[in-house]
Amino acid sequence: MVEPTMNPPRVFLVGAGPGAADLITLRGLRLLQRADVVIADALIAPDLLAEARADAEVVHVGKRGWCVGSTKQTTIHELLVHHAETGRSVVRLKGGDPGIFGRGGEEAEVLAAHGIPFEIVPGVTTAVAAAASAGFALTHRAVGPTIGFVTGHHDPASPECTVDWQALTKLSTLVVYMGLHHLDAIGEKLIAAGLSPTTPCAAVAKATLPDEVVLTTTLEDLALEVRLANLPTPVVVIVGEAVAYREKFRLLAETALTAGSRA
Amino acid sequence: MVEPTMNPPRVFLVGAGPGAADLITLRGLRLLQRADVVIADALIAPDLLAEARADAEVVHVGKRGWCVGSTKQTTIHELLVHHAETGRSVVRLKGGDPGIFGRGGEEAEVLAAHGIPFEIVPGVTTAVAAAASAGFALTHRAVGPTIGFVTGHHDPASPECTVDWQALTKLSTLVVYMGLHHLDAIGEKLIAAGLSPTTPCAAVAKATLPDEVVLTTTLEDLALEVRLANLPTPVVVIVGEAVAYREKFRLLAETALTAGSRA
Repeated sequence: MVEPTMNPPRVFLVGAGPGAADLITLRGLRLLQRADVVIADALIAPDLLAEARADAEVVHVGKRGWCVGSTKQTTIHELLVHHAETGRSVVRLKGGDPGIFGRGGEEAEVLAAHGIPFEIVPGVTTAVAAAASAGFALTHRAVGPTIGFVTGHHDPASPECTVDWQALTKLSTLVVYMGLHHLDAIGEKLIAAGLSPTTPCAAVAKATLPDEVVLTTTLEDLALEVRLANLPTPVVVIVGEAVAYREKFRLLAETALTAGSRA
Repeated sequence: MVEPTMNPPRVFLVGAGPGAADLITLRGLRLLQRADVVIADALIAPDLLAEARADAEVVHVGKRGWCVGSTKQTTIHELLVHHAETGRSVVRLKGGDPGIFGRGGEEAEVLAAHGIPFEIVPGVTTAVAAAASAGFALTHRAVGPTIGFVTGHHDPASPECTVDWQALTKLSTLVVYMGLHHLDAIGEKLIAAGLSPTTPCAAVAKATLPDEVVLTTTLEDLALEVRLANLPTPVVVIVGEAVAYREKFRLLAETALTAGSRA
């Protein structure tokens, strides 16, 4: 990593968190409030962007996963270098955490190659926020000791997809990022590799935002139910027994309240 | 999940983030500043606890992974229920994210069983913060599409350990939480299961705190080097080619600065 003793200009690759403006870290917020230039993903909450200085230059790079019309990653790299080389401080505000499928590593690489000092400021990644928002924990001792994240942006049938689905079925909980367009194939792959068709699943759309939708189902019905529900993007999918705790908590609370145990 | 329309008392299971006080979310901080009772893990930064109201009751539960002397999990459950049932608002402040190996799921279950409404407020989990702090991203397109977290608190040789090490070797990046006491066995398991002995590894001690230590090595030398360095706890270990980007970024920056490309 570049020397921490180097002076500004600096670029801060800041994780904005999963969606809700108040799920950014305090450090990320303070940097955002001070930056000369803010280069922001399309999915950043407007009330978070409103925290930028009134005279800050805000650049929207319109990155929305793999949609047509997104700003190309190479263009984002050029913008980062261009703005940093003007001598101003730059906050690159990215959804979730910059290091989890956020291409933050590629942006860091470009900055390093230009000798521009940078810092990565971590954020709440969507998987954990989606589970929290839906009311359950991603891990549970009774469920198992592992958890995995996979990006589902490649068609599992394409040669570009290098995912070992078999290995993923051995994890206690699995979270699929950006898998909306390939849910049929992903579900089939996981079932063919040994996961039970009745494995509990949750699809969380627009996690932590006011229009969040949580859909719980089973692995075999996942793709169809998600399609029927016409979920808004982005969607994260959680697969595994941890998901069943959502309903378990609800039933426990219902029983306790019916029994009047809280007087 | 319990009904969101239910009124206080509420318990908030809040992720305090990886260590540095300013890596809590804004939502977590605001709840902490308002809580009547704060039940805090031992590893919570003192300057974060200082954000609690002057008249708030702060309960230290001394939870330090699996060390002797920790408050028992059942005692924490009793404290949570006890304080919530006094009618006051309770923030349960947990290191990292409450849902990633944090036993937040168990605490939620106890609250549900008592009909006590709760909310999970996600946090920055240690794995992503450790990588960010060490200067690299946990995922990188050139490295692969998956990432896994495993808790290393059980001896891999014991029957209690249900980890499928073989499956973990198929992931692009692997992070071991709480594995300090079993690093020899974990390294051997991963190598026996097919990971190259020269796989890059980083051990990050006290991630994001002023006395953070980052040690980079290879899988075969990991346990020995960690022992020789006598790292302070907690330690998180990151295994995979993503770790090599730390040195790559450093070399790129050095080359760029030597070439004077930034004039």
